[in-house]
Amino acid sequence: MEIVSEKVERGVVEQRFDLHAGDDVVPGIRWSVEGATGPRPTVLIGHGGTQHKRAPYVLTLGRRLVRHLGYTAVALDAPGHGERVTDPELAERRRQALEARIAAGPGPGAPAIGPEEAREWVERVTTGVAEWKALLDELDPRDGGGRYGYWGVSMGTLIGLPFVASDRRIVAAVLGLAGLGNRPGAASFEQSARALQVPVLLVLQWDDELVPRAAGLDLFDAIGSREKTLHVNPGGHVAIPGFEMQSHEDFFLRHLGSAGS
Amino acid sequence: MEIVSEKVERGVVEQRFDLHAGDDVVPGIRWSVEGATGPRPTVLIGHGGTQHKRAPYVLTLGRRLVRHLGYTAVALDAPGHGERVTDPELAERRRQALEARIAAGPGPGAPAIGPEEAREWVERVTTGVAEWKALLDELDPRDGGGRYGYWGVSMGTLIGLPFVASDRRIVAAVLGLAGLGNRPGAASFEQSARALQVPVLLVLQWDDELVPRAAGLDLFDAIGSREKTLHVNPGGHVAIPGFEMQSHEDFFLRHLGSAGS
Repeated sequence: MEIVSEKVERGVVEQRFDLHAGDDVVPGIRWSVEGATGPRPTVLIGHGGTQHKRAPYVLTLGRRLVRHLGYTAVALDAPGHGERVTDPELAERRRQALEARIAAGPGPGAPAIGPEEAREWVERVTTGVAEWKALLDELDPRDGGGRYGYWGVSMGTLIGLPFVASDRRIVAAVLGLAGLGNRPGAASFEQSARALQVPVLLVLQWDDELVPRAAGLDLFDAIGSREKTLHVNPGGHVAIPGFEMQSHEDFFLRHLGSAGS
Repeated sequence: MEIVSEKVERGVVEQRFDLHAGDDVVPGIRWSVEGATGPRPTVLIGHGGTQHKRAPYVLTLGRRLVRHLGYTAVALDAPGHGERVTDPELAERRRQALEARIAAGPGPGAPAIGPEEAREWVERVTTGVAEWKALLDELDPRDGGGRYGYWGVSMGTLIGLPFVASDRRIVAAVLGLAGLGNRPGAASFEQSARALQVPVLLVLQWDDELVPRAAGLDLFDAIGSREKTLHVNPGGHVAIPGFEMQSHEDFFLRHLGSAGS
């Protein structure tokens, strides 16, 4: 893990780093308290599809975790996203396709996708999970002190849920905007959900254009964790109300503890 | 409204009062900050069936609202409950019947009840709503300063939801452990839910022995408020996890403001 650049803004250190995972170089960002000493609870933030490690809500969450809780936060560009886009035109077409599906309103969920895109999805999840594990291997023990959380909705859950289910180092997770269903890799995703053991806060949107209500509720039902909480608000896929972030902070604070402890 | 007695415990003033509403005397409790001046946001707390104004969770919530937020809180004995029980043997039989239904586990919801009990339920709701309104009429403007909230689950929602829907003085409500369905007065209850306009936090239990999942989710769907949030946790009717109280406090703070403002 190689620090590429660093800046400090209102008490928050933002480090741009490169993670070497497999044959790939994965660009990431770490936010931390300026002058922090000792281990700090650390939250890994997985962005959504067509987004990237510095999308506005990732940036907001990263900075809030630092400023409000004194935590450290880390985000990675998911495979094929952010600085890892190799075909900008294809990425732009995918972004437009996603926006069109959201604009079309709630429906029966994801339309059938071709075999190539299906293979791509399964590969993206496998690679994404491996990269989060590689990140944990690389992080200075000073960072998390054994107290790691994960936050990611939509694609951040499709990749993050199997990651959290298969890595004991993560002790609590905020997930959401996803459900059980018929997409590629769905059986494996459901199996991971049932294998979850750590506290989970699942966030759904009642009028999600991409995730049918029943699929989201089925996911909540399937999650194996003894402690799991579901939060639902009205509105579409990209309309989680801002006040939810407060409950996510409360959730992490409850399970990762305060920065000083 | 007549103060019957007063005690002070760790900074919390607890006043036992009698409210005169219609032909009835309704016993109530008010919790407030010792030495408080100026208007304070005030939360009315409606207890559940077979419970009373000083049930442990009512007491805990009342004191927390005072100690954590500097609010005032008020609880009443619902019709036929607490000090208003006129037939202790009947009340005890009802309490045991409720416990038996909870012990029987999740099922298709409330069993059919006789016409007499049905009439009693409708009357209890009508009377209970009128008593909350009478309380608001009586409260010193100093108490709430126009910032009143309501908290009540189970029977506290069966009475509280129609109350909140029909009284503009309540600006935010925590409701839950209830659903749409076939019980007496259900049509009127649903109509009230659709008429709600203030922010609502609805709390359901995923394995509620008394409220089928679909009935609770239907209630969330029916609530007319633009801002509504659903919180669901695993477990039965009487097992709302303690950490939820933090989110209820956050909710009231967001909508009623801080005590000083």
